[in-house]
Amino acid sequence: MATSFLRDVLCAYPETPRKLIEAIEYSLLAGGKRLRPALVIESWRACDGPEESREAALAAAGAVELVHTFSLVHDDLPAMDDDDLRRGKPTNHKVFGEAMAILAGDAMLAMAFEVVARHAPPQVAAPLIRELAHATGPQGMIGGQVLDIEGENQTLSLDQLQDIHRRKTGALLTGACRLGAIAAGATQAQLDALTRFGHHLGLAFQITDDVLDVTSTPHQLGKATNKDAGKGKNTYPELLGLDGSRAEASRQIASARRALDAFGSSATSLAHLADFVASRTS
Amino acid sequence: MATSFLRDVLCAYPETPRKLIEAIEYSLLAGGKRLRPALVIESWRACDGPEESREAALAAAGAVELVHTFSLVHDDLPAMDDDDLRRGKPTNHKVFGEAMAILAGDAMLAMAFEVVARHAPPQVAAPLIRELAHATGPQGMIGGQVLDIEGENQTLSLDQLQDIHRRKTGALLTGACRLGAIAAGATQAQLDALTRFGHHLGLAFQITDDVLDVTSTPHQLGKATNKDAGKGKNTYPELLGLDGSRAEASRQIASARRALDAFGSSATSLAHLADFVASRTS
Repeated sequence: MATSFLRDVLCAYPETPRKLIEAIEYSLLAGGKRLRPALVIESWRACDGPEESREAALAAAGAVELVHTFSLVHDDLPAMDDDDLRRGKPTNHKVFGEAMAILAGDAMLAMAFEVVARHAPPQVAAPLIRELAHATGPQGMIGGQVLDIEGENQTLSLDQLQDIHRRKTGALLTGACRLGAIAAGATQAQLDALTRFGHHLGLAFQITDDVLDVTSTPHQLGKATNKDAGKGKNTYPELLGLDGSRAEASRQIASARRALDAFGSSATSLAHLADFVASRTS
Repeated sequence: MATSFLRDVLCAYPETPRKLIEAIEYSLLAGGKRLRPALVIESWRACDGPEESREAALAAAGAVELVHTFSLVHDDLPAMDDDDLRRGKPTNHKVFGEAMAILAGDAMLAMAFEVVARHAPPQVAAPLIRELAHATGPQGMIGGQVLDIEGENQTLSLDQLQDIHRRKTGALLTGACRLGAIAAGATQAQLDALTRFGHHLGLAFQITDDVLDVTSTPHQLGKATNKDAGKGKNTYPELLGLDGSRAEASRQIASARRALDAFGSSATSLAHLADFVASRTS
């Protein structure tokens, strides 16, 4: 669903230079878990979003995947994490060169906002765009990436580590849940509950990411492993041990599921997504 | 005016990591001509924008400067134009490092859309954001940068050169004029006229840029000169000669001014901006 919507989105840019659209397609349609668009759609469903708001929710889902993909392409750059492998394929700059990877990322970020402004009615597009920009921007995901780079080779406390991850990974995951709620015209109580859900889910996601970095092979993960230690990054396994990290991830998932209590059966799929986050192997 | 608005915009991000906000401020508040925000405001004025739409116009003006500054920071990167000097100061990555320059640019792009979504009423925020994203994205400025890189060391026709510049420089200049018109609630005829104005202004701007690259000193221009020849870039002086280029710039400015005829005295300041573009020395 998300992939076919993203294909349609790309068709709306017929005058794009061929090489640029190839670079965008390469990363955007490369598969991946599509977790963030699923969070948008399932949060919208949990809030009983009316049928006429479906296109706004779909647009927000596509936008979140565009933002996520932009961030992967830029994070992989030599000046940043300098990664050669992503989702089992060479990273964008390895195939298209650094300049094109920077520009493809830039283009996807602009497209994310355009998709929402184009497909959602104005009254909901404006709050969706504020939410998306907030989750993405200097206080959210991008700010988290800055803190992550600054924290390399420094010893951080658990609080500091959680602040980095609350932004770097958590902001967009929480933002995805909130976008679905906003598209559905959720109540403040629903929005607050999904914000808590996203917060705990984000922490569980990052802990699992750190654990997989230590315990997986590059083949399983589709990207390099044991990167964190090599870069002097602070991780949960280092602070809490492997078993301690797994236990903490389970606690966060339990908290995430509790945040869904008030939604009843509408949130069954969201709860399954939470379980998937903790049990994933890639 | 634009600078104080931009300072206010930055105050809305108190949780931004200090280094990131420093990198953003360094480029965003570095001066510059502020031509694009002025085009937004003066186009709004030419269309007799009502007082209650002033904040939307200001937001669009700030957003355009954010987008312009993001593009300069990324264009200056080693993987792109590899420039050391901008507005008479070391480029962003020279001061803050490549990773921070990439992230500061990313943050400014996200902030541009947030500013509009936050300060303009929803009914006008959505069309403003569509316009801004279109001017910025894969078919606009970013697409133009791709074509510019691809055209290096190739011989281009005048038509091909104009297509590159229509996107790379022209899209955001035209977009600025259109944003002012949209904020003002302009008629279709006014929007069309300002689109023509922006188109001719953009060409004049780029021709003058190419001429200044050949005829100025780095001290006058605040950035390296004679760059185009060194990079095998196609330029107007190369295709038309210096005198021919100056004559073509004058023709474009005359066309731009003619597009303003229907606005009468409301467009006096816009006409002055056009003259400034052709006569500028930096």
